[in-house]
Amino acid sequence: MGKQKYAIGLDFGTESGRAVLVDVANGQEVASAVHPYGDGVIDDVLPGTNIELPHDFALQNPADYIEVLRITIPAVLRQAGVNGQDVIGLGTDFTACTMLPTDKAGMPLCRKAEWRDNPYAWVKIWKHHAAQPEANRLNEIAHERGERWLQRYGGKISSEWLFPKIWETLNKAPEVYEAADRYLEAADWIVLQMTGQERRNSCTAGYKAIWHKRDGYPGNDFFGALDPRLRNVVDTKLARQIYPLGQQAGGLTPAMAELTALRPGTAVSIGNVDAHVSVPAATVVEPGRMVIIMGTSNCHMVLGAKEHLVPGMCGVVEDGIIPGFFGYEAGQSCVGDHFAWFVKNCAHAADQEEARSRGIDLHQLLEEKAALQRPGEHGLLALDWWNGNRSVLVDVDLTGMLLGATLSTRAEDIYRALIEATAYGTRMIIDTFEKSGVAVDEIVACGGLPERNKLLMQIYADVTGREIRVSASQQTPALGSAMFGAVAAGRAAGGYDSIFEAVPHMAQLKDEVYRPIAEHTDVYDQIYAEYEHLHDYFGRGENDVMKRLKALRGRVQIGD
Amino acid sequence: MGKQKYAIGLDFGTESGRAVLVDVANGQEVASAVHPYGDGVIDDVLPGTNIELPHDFALQNPADYIEVLRITIPAVLRQAGVNGQDVIGLGTDFTACTMLPTDKAGMPLCRKAEWRDNPYAWVKIWKHHAAQPEANRLNEIAHERGERWLQRYGGKISSEWLFPKIWETLNKAPEVYEAADRYLEAADWIVLQMTGQERRNSCTAGYKAIWHKRDGYPGNDFFGALDPRLRNVVDTKLARQIYPLGQQAGGLTPAMAELTALRPGTAVSIGNVDAHVSVPAATVVEPGRMVIIMGTSNCHMVLGAKEHLVPGMCGVVEDGIIPGFFGYEAGQSCVGDHFAWFVKNCAHAADQEEARSRGIDLHQLLEEKAALQRPGEHGLLALDWWNGNRSVLVDVDLTGMLLGATLSTRAEDIYRALIEATAYGTRMIIDTFEKSGVAVDEIVACGGLPERNKLLMQIYADVTGREIRVSASQQTPALGSAMFGAVAAGRAAGGYDSIFEAVPHMAQLKDEVYRPIAEHTDVYDQIYAEYEHLHDYFGRGENDVMKRLKALRGRVQIGD
Repeated sequence: MGKQKYAIGLDFGTESGRAVLVDVANGQEVASAVHPYGDGVIDDVLPGTNIELPHDFALQNPADYIEVLRITIPAVLRQAGVNGQDVIGLGTDFTACTMLPTDKAGMPLCRKAEWRDNPYAWVKIWKHHAAQPEANRLNEIAHERGERWLQRYGGKISSEWLFPKIWETLNKAPEVYEAADRYLEAADWIVLQMTGQERRNSCTAGYKAIWHKRDGYPGNDFFGALDPRLRNVVDTKLARQIYPLGQQAGGLTPAMAELTALRPGTAVSIGNVDAHVSVPAATVVEPGRMVIIMGTSNCHMVLGAKEHLVPGMCGVVEDGIIPGFFGYEAGQSCVGDHFAWFVKNCAHAADQEEARSRGIDLHQLLEEKAALQRPGEHGLLALDWWNGNRSVLVDVDLTGMLLGATLSTRAEDIYRALIEATAYGTRMIIDTFEKSGVAVDEIVACGGLPERNKLLMQIYADVTGREIRVSASQQTPALGSAMFGAVAAGRAAGGYDSIFEAVPHMAQLKDEVYRPIAEHTDVYDQIYAEYEHLHDYFGRGENDVMKRLKALRGRVQIGD
Repeated sequence: MGKQKYAIGLDFGTESGRAVLVDVANGQEVASAVHPYGDGVIDDVLPGTNIELPHDFALQNPADYIEVLRITIPAVLRQAGVNGQDVIGLGTDFTACTMLPTDKAGMPLCRKAEWRDNPYAWVKIWKHHAAQPEANRLNEIAHERGERWLQRYGGKISSEWLFPKIWETLNKAPEVYEAADRYLEAADWIVLQMTGQERRNSCTAGYKAIWHKRDGYPGNDFFGALDPRLRNVVDTKLARQIYPLGQQAGGLTPAMAELTALRPGTAVSIGNVDAHVSVPAATVVEPGRMVIIMGTSNCHMVLGAKEHLVPGMCGVVEDGIIPGFFGYEAGQSCVGDHFAWFVKNCAHAADQEEARSRGIDLHQLLEEKAALQRPGEHGLLALDWWNGNRSVLVDVDLTGMLLGATLSTRAEDIYRALIEATAYGTRMIIDTFEKSGVAVDEIVACGGLPERNKLLMQIYADVTGREIRVSASQQTPALGSAMFGAVAAGRAAGGYDSIFEAVPHMAQLKDEVYRPIAEHTDVYDQIYAEYEHLHDYFGRGENDVMKRLKALRGRVQIGD
């Protein structure tokens, strides 16, 4: 055995970037450092200008990503007392679709004096929502043309994804579109900066850019039908060569090595996405085990050996999560956000006082009170659509519902009903996968919620009737990236030759297992049948009251 | 013109009794006094004993009613400096069905040493709910037999009414039933005490004891089908002679005159009920003008010249409100209670703090915030069934629903949606009346809510599309009783010969009128169509999810 070897995982989030230094032999997270982006999420005024942004803009400054490298990598080395020479590989993950236009050399247009004042020259991050008109039109045209790839995405392309965002720029700032040598996912841009290599990854290409391993992108005819100027968008602004996850993108350039105090040539993996890179970090590299990242929203990922079309999912991508498998993704747009909404708007002063006096937060208090009940005891049922429905119905215009209230309904009852509603939503996703041929035998949870809310975990086990285990890492995306970094380095350099090889060494689960309790599951089966009935009644067109109320609301507000 | 003449209205409520001294000439309320019942609502331990009462018992001590006479009548005379000689008449109103067993002399059994320790010998008040099994069985048998009178009561006799309460005693304490010379409504018992005359009133007989002016009581066969021992209950424990409202019951006995500092022989009117006696006090003695008593619950009363069977109402009784008319009653079991529930369970600390710092209560604050919105703006819709549905569906097992919630839904939005839900419930009642031939052209509101919540009043006007006026009196039941007292005295004594004659002199409305605003009504018409649809979907059997959840809740709780 040689000296200890390390890999670094770099996780680029919405507000900050994080580096985690990981021991390649056992996955131990030796050190970590976070750097908040200097310009943060730019949604108000363009930095250094007075230029105000429209309401639904969300931009970033790509220079902030480089700052993350410059600051956090040396910081973790220092913290751990590790020499940069002992870091064998680096992996990165990013939010997505987070995209930017660059010049031929990969320089972001917004870093060039002549484009600095144009918002469309900056990075549009995932939650930039100004391309909704383009997304609507794209979906219309795709439906009219009967584009088969639509089915892989639940029948709907999101305004958050690549082509609506590019088209928006073409419509609003055609000069930027013209000036762009190409468009890149930030996930690929950071790899280009680190290695000098453009290696577009299969994850963002598949989930965000309608790319398919066998069929490639939609045809030029389709893009031409959107706008004649878009006909050749793939060939002129993107690239048709896509690289599967797990490959090495290249070695660290000398300039980057100097910036980060690492060795030039240090292996860098193909880019990845924060959610998807968490899957191997949660020990999952085979079909049948669903990973759920639980936080403000839920993201569900599961692998399959075959391609199935599952209605209403976010996407199925070959090599999209783990090379050699079809990666399936689904999501719930509102989970922790439900509980936060309730606590923010409806938590009672007496509860707040009790929480304060006991030094716990309100969520803990309500969880504690809610945990004293048995399933079915509060008599409530909610539909978890406070922020629309992302899967299975794929409808942002659906809204939340609570039913069963009486004069004896208490705050903790509603809190518990909201937790249960999100569990029913997850079960609906699992059932839909299974009906379509994608097995879900077990669940592995990661993200912020599993740590904080044991009641929620037990309810998910009871409602889904499946065992749930929890990732041992509190920073699964960064750990997953480090694992891919070790794979990029390869066994010869002290790493691993595949992600399958890396997992048993580097990824771990906690010992605790949440097991379904039979008498709970019996009760929840009955309530879930009611949920399913109302889900279909309000969600599949039998009674579109939610949409009508929302439309009415829009008309009333326009009347301002 | 002679000296000023006065009438006294006595309003016997749930927790206390009130006397109001009224100037007969102009209805001015000269003085009022309240006396809380010494034993209050007896729902825990029988007074002077260790005898614990079952959960759903609610009793009173009839001696407390006499105390109200002894204390409040001299108090109002003293306050106003009025001589008892100048009081020409007394009227009374009571909660109902509030009933008691007495001996031949009208002495309550619970006042006799041998029965004092038996809970069934005491007054069962309106909210005594222990007779639910008897009510269920009574309804079953009545349906099986196709009893036509059921239709007059929305198809269901309440456990709060007379015969279930009598039958409960027969089942649980047959010795009390045997010992009772008769059963009386407290409304009639107090009149008996004051005058020595048993004069059963048409209001409680009609609304609470299934009596009909032409058909009388249900047949002895029906009572025999309930229980052979009940076959002759009407003849042995009640009486078939019923007196219409507006008549004189008799004169004050010398003993009562001494107790109250009034003149012996002072006219006393037939007994009445708190809700119904409010109708003339709100100026209504003709068809087409609905009186709504708005408080914790809503009670709707309207007069008709003919008898119509209106589905799902609380009752239609000839002479039940105003002599010569059919009095229709409907109700919503949860109105102010909705708002109180929300404030108690869900009002946020920040709102509580703001209310405190501004010296207003939370209801005022939420009303103020909710008033800033236009109809339809919050996007919410609620079904006002937190306490079941009393009319039109007559179903205690229905529960509340809120739909349309998003992450931007605020406390004041929900508060407003709950107000609107109760307005939709009232519109449903009005529409049902009108479809059945009972006109409702205008609304007169009284009770506690109209004083406190102007937003609510405007919403009711906008939702129902009808003008709403408000009774000038803050104590309409007592004023109504005083009016009937003046009628009992008659014109010769300085009063009036009929309630129709009394109204223009003694009853007044406030100047303010809530008028429907056309653009609000347009929006509310659209939302009401959605309410109606969901009302029928959840309320008429298409989806009985509320009942199934409630039943499941019951099973889970029994599992304790």
